[in-house]
Amino acid sequence: MKPRACIFDAYGTLFDVHSVVQRAGAGLTGDLRALSILWRRKQLEYTWLRALMERYEDFWCITEAALRAAACELSIAVTDEQVERLMAGYLAPAVFPDVVATLEQLKGSPMAILSNGSPAMLDAAVRNNLLDAHFAEVISVDCVRTYKPSPRVYILGPQRLRMPAGDILFVSSNSWDAAGAKAFGYRVCWCNRIGASMEGLGFAPDFVVQSLERIPEIFGTRLHSHLVRK
Amino acid sequence: MKPRACIFDAYGTLFDVHSVVQRAGAGLTGDLRALSILWRRKQLEYTWLRALMERYEDFWCITEAALRAAACELSIAVTDEQVERLMAGYLAPAVFPDVVATLEQLKGSPMAILSNGSPAMLDAAVRNNLLDAHFAEVISVDCVRTYKPSPRVYILGPQRLRMPAGDILFVSSNSWDAAGAKAFGYRVCWCNRIGASMEGLGFAPDFVVQSLERIPEIFGTRLHSHLVRK
Repeated sequence: MKPRACIFDAYGTLFDVHSVVQRAGAGLTGDLRALSILWRRKQLEYTWLRALMERYEDFWCITEAALRAAACELSIAVTDEQVERLMAGYLAPAVFPDVVATLEQLKGSPMAILSNGSPAMLDAAVRNNLLDAHFAEVISVDCVRTYKPSPRVYILGPQRLRMPAGDILFVSSNSWDAAGAKAFGYRVCWCNRIGASMEGLGFAPDFVVQSLERIPEIFGTRLHSHLVRK
Repeated sequence: MKPRACIFDAYGTLFDVHSVVQRAGAGLTGDLRALSILWRRKQLEYTWLRALMERYEDFWCITEAALRAAACELSIAVTDEQVERLMAGYLAPAVFPDVVATLEQLKGSPMAILSNGSPAMLDAAVRNNLLDAHFAEVISVDCVRTYKPSPRVYILGPQRLRMPAGDILFVSSNSWDAAGAKAFGYRVCWCNRIGASMEGLGFAPDFVVQSLERIPEIFGTRLHSHLVRK
């Protein structure tokens, strides 16, 4: 059975989070690659921690707190203006080069985004990259005030698309997100662009691809055996 | 008002998790310091992720999965025997040099441990370091099948010690744990031995010390103003 719909994670999967520092980091002094990596790591950690603490703040707030903490830890001085410019970068992050062609090819299947991002952030990122026509739904965790990989988030996909999770292909480049979606019940494709190793969370994706461009094959009439690398 | 009881986090606060690779890593080839750091990071990440996924596995299982994933990511070959030896190291980790003297000085106040560790791991680590006489309670998250910083974990302290959280000093070297305990309602001391920066989670500890040896002052009749660095 081929999937009937496709849900994409946003940050790291469609949008390159590291493009933000690359584009808006001018004027900062220090190891900007390290800043970008630590900013992203703390951003994710804070979502997990605040969700577990039951002290939800939206992704915009968390992203700014993570930026300030990452800069502090790396002793990189940032002014409020620089923080503002970096945060604004999150409203128009670069899309990965395989995104647009893939979305074009998947036309005809319902597509959605399911993301930690706040509604305003997601709306801006999608519109600024001219992707809005592709998605039937852009779903933010904000309505349930928790974060991935909570099942309270993943259930939003089947609810909004009105079909069982098992009929939906969930695509993420974050292997912990792929594990969470699989534990919930989606069919899952891990887009592992960078040759990362899978996290040891006990839930393996159904498909592993190196580029989103392989996803239309999964929606084809036959599954190509070389795609399936459980 | 001085606190009436003291609850300690275990790993990273009483027990030096990095002693495990230092002591049991002989025979491994690669950057063992990097392995120890990544092992610890994944161990924590997996607790947060599995708790959010509502797919609890105990800390022993998570610790082994984190070790295998960290070694894989760093391309450090580990045999099953080496994994077994490293895991056994978790049953007798080194205590930090400031632990024993501090516990001696705090005699007379009820003390407990509240930890992510499984009951068997905690029992072994406490006994192998001859610390059992000091603690009225050694409390594992296992009975609630989730992990810190969930309030379902922190509530175990007041329940077992039969006093309000605000009467208890919660001591942790993990700043996210200090934030979680503060959000729950404890009085909190962050033992920042390594000069780390505080995570940006919105909850600051009441006290910050560089060594556990400063904690008896907090239980003294007067608070020394130089201790309070909110």
